[in-house]
Amino acid sequence: MSAKLKTAVVGATGYAGFELTRLLLRHPQLEKPIFVGRAGEANSPADLAEVFPNLCGNGGYPLHPFSWQRLAEGGIDLLFLATPHEVSRALAPQAIFRGMRVVDLSAAWRLREQQNSAVYDFNDDDPHLAADAMRKAVYGLPELNRTKVQDAALVANPGCYPTSVILALAPLLRADMIDRSRGIVSDSKSGVSGAGKEPSSRTHFVSVADNLSAYSVFGHRHTGEILEQLHLAASELIFTPHLLPIPRGILSTIYVHLAQPTSPSDVQSCFREFYAGSRWVRIFPTPQLPQIQFSLNTNYCDIGFCLADDGQRLVLVSCIDNLLKGAAGQAVQNMNLMYGWSEEAGLN
Amino acid sequence: MSAKLKTAVVGATGYAGFELTRLLLRHPQLEKPIFVGRAGEANSPADLAEVFPNLCGNGGYPLHPFSWQRLAEGGIDLLFLATPHEVSRALAPQAIFRGMRVVDLSAAWRLREQQNSAVYDFNDDDPHLAADAMRKAVYGLPELNRTKVQDAALVANPGCYPTSVILALAPLLRADMIDRSRGIVSDSKSGVSGAGKEPSSRTHFVSVADNLSAYSVFGHRHTGEILEQLHLAASELIFTPHLLPIPRGILSTIYVHLAQPTSPSDVQSCFREFYAGSRWVRIFPTPQLPQIQFSLNTNYCDIGFCLADDGQRLVLVSCIDNLLKGAAGQAVQNMNLMYGWSEEAGLN
Amino acid sequence: MSAKLKTAVVGATGYAGFELTRLLLRHPQLEKPIFVGRAGEANSPADLAEVFPNLCGNGGYPLHPFSWQRLAEGGIDLLFLATPHEVSRALAPQAIFRGMRVVDLSAAWRLREQQNSAVYDFNDDDPHLAADAMRKAVYGLPELNRTKVQDAALVANPGCYPTSVILALAPLLRADMIDRSRGIVSDSKSGVSGAGKEPSSRTHFVSVADNLSAYSVFGHRHTGEILEQLHLAASELIFTPHLLPIPRGILSTIYVHLAQPTSPSDVQSCFREFYAGSRWVRIFPTPQLPQIQFSLNTNYCDIGFCLADDGQRLVLVSCIDNLLKGAAGQAVQNMNLMYGWSEEAGLN
Amino acid sequence: MSAKLKTAVVGATGYAGFELTRLLLRHPQLEKPIFVGRAGEANSPADLAEVFPNLCGNGGYPLHPFSWQRLAEGGIDLLFLATPHEVSRALAPQAIFRGMRVVDLSAAWRLREQQNSAVYDFNDDDPHLAADAMRKAVYGLPELNRTKVQDAALVANPGCYPTSVILALAPLLRADMIDRSRGIVSDSKSGVSGAGKEPSSRTHFVSVADNLSAYSVFGHRHTGEILEQLHLAASELIFTPHLLPIPRGILSTIYVHLAQPTSPSDVQSCFREFYAGSRWVRIFPTPQLPQIQFSLNTNYCDIGFCLADDGQRLVLVSCIDNLLKGAAGQAVQNMNLMYGWSEEAGLN
Repeated sequence: MSAKLKTAVVGATGYAGFELTRLLLRHPQLEKPIFVGRAGEANSPADLAEVFPNLCGNGGYPLHPFSWQRLAEGGIDLLFLATPHEVSRALAPQAIFRGMRVVDLSAAWRLREQQNSAVYDFNDDDPHLAADAMRKAVYGLPELNRTKVQDAALVANPGCYPTSVILALAPLLRADMIDRSRGIVSDSKSGVSGAGKEPSSRTHFVSVADNLSAYSVFGHRHTGEILEQLHLAASELIFTPHLLPIPRGILSTIYVHLAQPTSPSDVQSCFREFYAGSRWVRIFPTPQLPQIQFSLNTNYCDIGFCLADDGQRLVLVSCIDNLLKGAAGQAVQNMNLMYGWSEEAGLN
Repeated sequence: MSAKLKTAVVGATGYAGFELTRLLLRHPQLEKPIFVGRAGEANSPADLAEVFPNLCGNGGYPLHPFSWQRLAEGGIDLLFLATPHEVSRALAPQAIFRGMRVVDLSAAWRLREQQNSAVYDFNDDDPHLAADAMRKAVYGLPELNRTKVQDAALVANPGCYPTSVILALAPLLRADMIDRSRGIVSDSKSGVSGAGKEPSSRTHFVSVADNLSAYSVFGHRHTGEILEQLHLAASELIFTPHLLPIPRGILSTIYVHLAQPTSPSDVQSCFREFYAGSRWVRIFPTPQLPQIQFSLNTNYCDIGFCLADDGQRLVLVSCIDNLLKGAAGQAVQNMNLMYGWSEEAGLN
Repeated sequence: MSAKLKTAVVGATGYAGFELTRLLLRHPQLEKPIFVGRAGEANSPADLAEVFPNLCGNGGYPLHPFSWQRLAEGGIDLLFLATPHEVSRALAPQAIFRGMRVVDLSAAWRLREQQNSAVYDFNDDDPHLAADAMRKAVYGLPELNRTKVQDAALVANPGCYPTSVILALAPLLRADMIDRSRGIVSDSKSGVSGAGKEPSSRTHFVSVADNLSAYSVFGHRHTGEILEQLHLAASELIFTPHLLPIPRGILSTIYVHLAQPTSPSDVQSCFREFYAGSRWVRIFPTPQLPQIQFSLNTNYCDIGFCLADDGQRLVLVSCIDNLLKGAAGQAVQNMNLMYGWSEEAGLN
Repeated sequence: MSAKLKTAVVGATGYAGFELTRLLLRHPQLEKPIFVGRAGEANSPADLAEVFPNLCGNGGYPLHPFSWQRLAEGGIDLLFLATPHEVSRALAPQAIFRGMRVVDLSAAWRLREQQNSAVYDFNDDDPHLAADAMRKAVYGLPELNRTKVQDAALVANPGCYPTSVILALAPLLRADMIDRSRGIVSDSKSGVSGAGKEPSSRTHFVSVADNLSAYSVFGHRHTGEILEQLHLAASELIFTPHLLPIPRGILSTIYVHLAQPTSPSDVQSCFREFYAGSRWVRIFPTPQLPQIQFSLNTNYCDIGFCLADDGQRLVLVSCIDNLLKGAAGQAVQNMNLMYGWSEEAGLN
């Protein structure tokens, strides 16, 4: 019988890191992971259960300060980074250099180099090593990049919004069914955990409750991922995120114009064929539409649609749990691919 | 000094009826209104405070069963109908016939006859009288129809979604700045009070909380109002409503393509000129955007926008309180116009 | 290798029934359960996924109309009743008569006969059979009745509020540490799923959101369970339930007066000893207190406390997920006991 | 005709300060108040509408940096302090010295000196002046201290929790109807605005939503106010605050034991007599109970009760809007008393 995989999580104290922790702890193919707090975290706790009392009573979850030596001694095979962009940018090349494989949940390695530099001002210590890592990075959306992920040394786990938008659009774009010249609109709405755990006036309960707000119109950092993965020009997409008064979940309402008058069943077929064999995408029979509640606490991306009588104006609705299919669940799904396990291992 | 106006509210026990009640009670130009329950309301309460304990302790608010005789004896000048479509359809012609003016908060008189019949199956007792009322009906969006409202016998108070959408689009459409051939998208989100007070599985707390859902895509009854008031063809607009986990408020995110490259300041000017003198529309300086919280408990329609670098792709955000500017507040604003008072009377 | 257990769930379409369904589906010792809708359910769905779209894509969950014949043909060993009190009252004796064991989630069999009749007006078809079932019924709070549950033919699964209150009080009462003459207060707060799935004006989103209300003061049906299990006189307890604006979870704040000045560590010891070996109770180290979030989506009952300087005035805080430890999770825990499995089987 | 009163608000950018601002702006007896930001507020805004976009479009609300000179030039009669305790402690004596009257919304002047020093570590620049202010301070609960407030130079506006608890208990305690030896329990629940506007992990949306938590058991700073005003010994009261997932509102459930068996109508009479002439207290007819929603956006304190069959065990429920009757509304009510106006002026 083969040995179990040795993993570590850096940044286990954030929302995504915590979800990842819970998933890894019950994954059948893993040894108990090593949890590492963020370097420089003030008053860093000694055990994850101090941060997440939900964990109490299930045994200890010691949190270690970050150190390469500790990871080496632990014989870590696979390193998960649930860290800020800059931290992931610094750690991933080192980890690869030391022979680990990496799944990074930040945005540090998602964009091709030139696009990256337009959005992030990374100040790499070792530009050579960083460039090498960048070349090795695979965009970890399993439904689109299954084969590449299998062999990747560095998987750039997609952003939450992009996951919901790309999965809804890819089948129709790949089939060339969309009239891009008419423009694509993604009106996306996310729960507050997507904004991270750092307290701010924007995430204060009183600011969010009984409210809805649009933000970063024409300027959200996730736009680049969507464009790059779907081979769209910037002028072909408007992506507008909104902050919902709920803890988690994303719903994207996406508006496209089909190139030809099409029947609902042809749209349905396009999706079903594209996602045949994809365990974690559910296509709803039209006119039934997904709702955020349906995908909460699951790794599903739910997709539904309504087609106008003209057979061309199409409204797509796509839902995910931003912390699972939009972050930690997808990271586990990527790991499953990387090690040849079933894509649903540890995710049911 | 002139006598105060005599008003009555039919349907004061619904959400919009209650807001209307509160506004009328503090309006300086009115006698204390007569409140009338819905005909056939089971266990009809004797006093509004039984339905809305908020009202306790401010004196009595007796609820009378509906009767034309009582309204006649009360010498009612102006009748507010906060009743279901069919009830408003039956009552309004009678009220006009009896010499009252009417502000109707239902959809019974909002659409031109032929469109109306496509959506509602009204079975008029006296088709002649109904047709007469229909001819007299004025769509009560003060910012667009100020003059007509002043003399109207019957004001059809706009729907909540249409108020938010029409006010955001009218200035640009009137100025012919929008390329309609590219299509207009309104992605609208509403709090639950917009779905009415009737309990249903859809409005159950557990169904709404921690959730977001789109509904009635390509089929919402409010679509006709928007098209008719903005002189749009059905193919030129996609209107998608969503149910938000909040009690009240609407935010519409609207996507248009301008006919010519335009500067933000020209868009701003278009709005400011159109709404010069309109007390209840606030235009936000770009790129500041309205949020639902900003307009809650006010009669404002708040409008903001972001324009892409190309000067053509434009995202509009429009917010109202669905029970005020989207219903009761607008009804009072219409009354103010009908009797020559300041549009802000009773609304501050 | 032993055969797997054959189970059925009647009432799988309610909130507790659905949670139970999810737990049973992943329980390692069970065959796939048979799901039975409520007799007489209007437009009864053919598959559970129609009611709970969360289930889509995991295979079918056919919902059968209730029939003894079907249950007999299925060779059902254990029947779960997630049905209204009257329905459980009618079905349980029949099931026992037919040789099945029963876990009933309603209140039909929780109280000794005379108390029962003071609260419920059960009109038994066969009083003899009902009395027999009543004699066999065991109150299914595993931490208190572990041994009796193991052999029970009929387990009366406790109410949600009583679970949170009894588990917090039992250790201190059994140790005779509480001065009952001073009275015990349980101020309990529950999420809306505790009120059931039936739409009503009380569970309408707009009635619950931004609100808190006390109800059934001195008259809640759960009071009898607490008194009976804790051997308290009615005059010794005030139990006040409140409706919280959240979907699920219960927090009870309980006020007692200790008979003797006591140290926090003695209180802690009393709890730790009483619950030694109880997998699903977590005692928090004082002064840390449980919160509803900590126990959500788990089968834990979390208990914490603060003791005044006088060593006598004690505030206990107890939290559960009302649909898990307060209903479906506890039902599975009882099943585990009934069949000699680990109490945590299927609950991690 | 008499001149209008000149007022200023220091700390208008907090939650209570903003509510106060809205109330003062529409108060008929006031000149437009001067708004003063907190000294040292970073990036201090130039206009209140920058902080509260709700205010946009109603004219300007310039925010001035704090300066005694400016207040003197403005001829300020009455100064409202909506500032942190230490700031109020420093400013109030100076303001009195300069001839202004003061209403302070902080806790700086609510407790008798010795109690104060047990809770707060005030480091007065001029202890003599501070002691003088302390002697002049009146606890501004109008229903209890009406006469003293009228002439006060310094009104210490009560805390939000104490307002809800004291008003519910005072009538029965003054009538000596409560058996204090049995102990009084106040289980109080508050919306998040009570915790202030400062972002923290505790007020992060994700920490509060879908949650309930007790805090500061046996240690909340408001306990002293309740004890002092009700002349209770510390051992006679347990006050437990909880954080509710709502923006605003307080509900206190209070448990007492009456000294003698009493009828509900005698309890009712006790309350009605005590609050005869008190415009802002509503007594609910038993067994109807107040809910948070009923008092939101009003200056009411709503009180209801349920009495056990034994006529001794009594549950009181008391609700307020923490920002109005619990802060800004009460401040205006106090001002009305100080200047001989109707207590409801500006509060309808």
